[in-house]
Amino acid sequence: MTARTQGTVRIVGTGLLGASIGHALTALGVDVVLADASRSAVSLAVDYGAGRAAGPGDAPSLVVVAVPPDVTAQVTAAELDAYPEAIVTDVASVKSGILLELQSIGADLTRYVGSHPMAGRERTGAVASRADLFIGRPWVIAAPEEAGTAWRVVEALALDLGAAPVRMDALAHDEAVAVVSHVPQLVASILAKRLLGATDQAVSLAGPGVRDTTRIAASDPALWVQILGANATAVVMLLEEYRADLDVAIAALSDQAASGARRAIAELIASGSTGVARIPGKHGSSKQYASITVLVDDRPGELARLLTEIGALGVNMEDLRLEHSPGAQVGIAEIAVLPEVEARLVADLTAAGWRIGAAE
Amino acid sequence: MTARTQGTVRIVGTGLLGASIGHALTALGVDVVLADASRSAVSLAVDYGAGRAAGPGDAPSLVVVAVPPDVTAQVTAAELDAYPEAIVTDVASVKSGILLELQSIGADLTRYVGSHPMAGRERTGAVASRADLFIGRPWVIAAPEEAGTAWRVVEALALDLGAAPVRMDALAHDEAVAVVSHVPQLVASILAKRLLGATDQAVSLAGPGVRDTTRIAASDPALWVQILGANATAVVMLLEEYRADLDVAIAALSDQAASGARRAIAELIASGSTGVARIPGKHGSSKQYASITVLVDDRPGELARLLTEIGALGVNMEDLRLEHSPGAQVGIAEIAVLPEVEARLVADLTAAGWRIGAAE
Repeated sequence: MTARTQGTVRIVGTGLLGASIGHALTALGVDVVLADASRSAVSLAVDYGAGRAAGPGDAPSLVVVAVPPDVTAQVTAAELDAYPEAIVTDVASVKSGILLELQSIGADLTRYVGSHPMAGRERTGAVASRADLFIGRPWVIAAPEEAGTAWRVVEALALDLGAAPVRMDALAHDEAVAVVSHVPQLVASILAKRLLGATDQAVSLAGPGVRDTTRIAASDPALWVQILGANATAVVMLLEEYRADLDVAIAALSDQAASGARRAIAELIASGSTGVARIPGKHGSSKQYASITVLVDDRPGELARLLTEIGALGVNMEDLRLEHSPGAQVGIAEIAVLPEVEARLVADLTAAGWRIGAAE
Repeated sequence: MTARTQGTVRIVGTGLLGASIGHALTALGVDVVLADASRSAVSLAVDYGAGRAAGPGDAPSLVVVAVPPDVTAQVTAAELDAYPEAIVTDVASVKSGILLELQSIGADLTRYVGSHPMAGRERTGAVASRADLFIGRPWVIAAPEEAGTAWRVVEALALDLGAAPVRMDALAHDEAVAVVSHVPQLVASILAKRLLGATDQAVSLAGPGVRDTTRIAASDPALWVQILGANATAVVMLLEEYRADLDVAIAALSDQAASGARRAIAELIASGSTGVARIPGKHGSSKQYASITVLVDDRPGELARLLTEIGALGVNMEDLRLEHSPGAQVGIAEIAVLPEVEARLVADLTAAGWRIGAAE
């Protein structure tokens, strides 16, 4: 495979994202030079195969700034100055603040392309880096008008790394991540905090619903203080809408005899149903799948045996979830398939001795 | 298999829960008689094999009331009167209001045992009923003190149906379901409502985080108006705590320069992390598993091939999640295993040619 990316790529910041980009480009035969405020961080990333250490003679055609959000604008401006022939991009997860700061510094925006690869891991640093970190993930490209067609260079980078490029302006990006990432994070954290006051027995009744709604609450406070702070305007606007709806729910449940109280709750639940239906399904389609559940004994190999039989029936699974109930020695596999194959699959699996169960 | 349940069981209400209980007991050889306000509903449930139609000569030892929440107390009181030798239980999802109503009616509480099988399906009615609806699910038993050991009869029923019995008093039950079910539902609905105002492009960036946090928002408004209304006291108390935390977040993000603002956000995120860690893992343990992710080509049989190899390596998967990214022809399988086998599994799978990827 030949890289779309031409010339030398300079990566500033050899943490998880920077080192992963370096790995992937190096694997494609691209010349990668690495810089970091910490010399030992560069050595580590070099040892891990992310590229070679930057030197005075480098002439990069593209600079990728992958440093913490709060220093991204400064570092980006310095790179624009230092390499007047290069396109410079950054990978911070909030975009308009950086653009405003670059404008106020008077940076050369004709060569600046903001970007946001929507990938990450629980672990950080070059040690956790992987060439395939970006495969299949959206990579937002937010270039100012001044940059003309410079965005194509970052698009090529995203495609080289297996990501799906999405062009948006900085403000639209920040509003988008507020609704699909930042507000869900805060809502999940505040919900999960309620579990602190619950009894052990209450927590033992937790089913798939509360597990799913709180999963992302297991998060790093320091990182989220930075992210939420950098996107405060968009986040606060949504949180205020959220609070208005919450107030409606509290008022309606506190005085159920009041005129319109039951209707207010029904409308909130209905609006939520309509909202969640907007989230696209597999591969960006919003197609609805049929969901069937199969009980799987909790023994090694049982799930593989089920999936092998499904494959042998010529049915493609669109999605799969496994659930375990506390205390039960049986798992529940929830399998999404095209609606037209549902009846046949249920019949065939039942005939083969599988127990078809019921979703929550 | 011999049923623990002795004598005739009368089921009142032949919807999903009633008919499913009837199916399961009939399969165990228990004599089941069915009653419903609708004669045609009884006929349908009989046709589906849930039992025989109730008649004047029935002498049930156990009556199961499986009617809508808002008529459960009345119907339960009538059954206690009509069958003075029988234990009577109900399966409504909120328990203290029903107990209070029975007390105020002056019902015979020495034979009343409230219960709540925590199972359900998206579809309703006898048509959707299944004998294995309750397998592995918690079945809360909330008996008043007056009922002495009558709860054992309902415990036997729960065990016959494959459920995991959990004894709690009515108030503790209602507080528990408020925190693990009712409040997560409202929070998810209000969050999902925010997606209505988002652009198509913003929604296209939705990843696993927002998908999980909003999944349960796809819900029936009429049902949830009844459930939330019946448990309003416990729900409102939690929602008010929730609103207080939301106010803190809004204030902190609106004035980040204020003293303590960043700390307030960090503490919310940290509390959420601590809260979500309380949710027990597989089989009720709170053991932490190592999570590895494997990239799986989107072809029929690929996932089965992966799981077969994992089984052949002698490794038991503790959990499995599949993720697809919009536009990508590759899926990501997130596999939870015991920490001590993680390194070996990663090495073996890599050697076998699988690409080990990265979790979000």
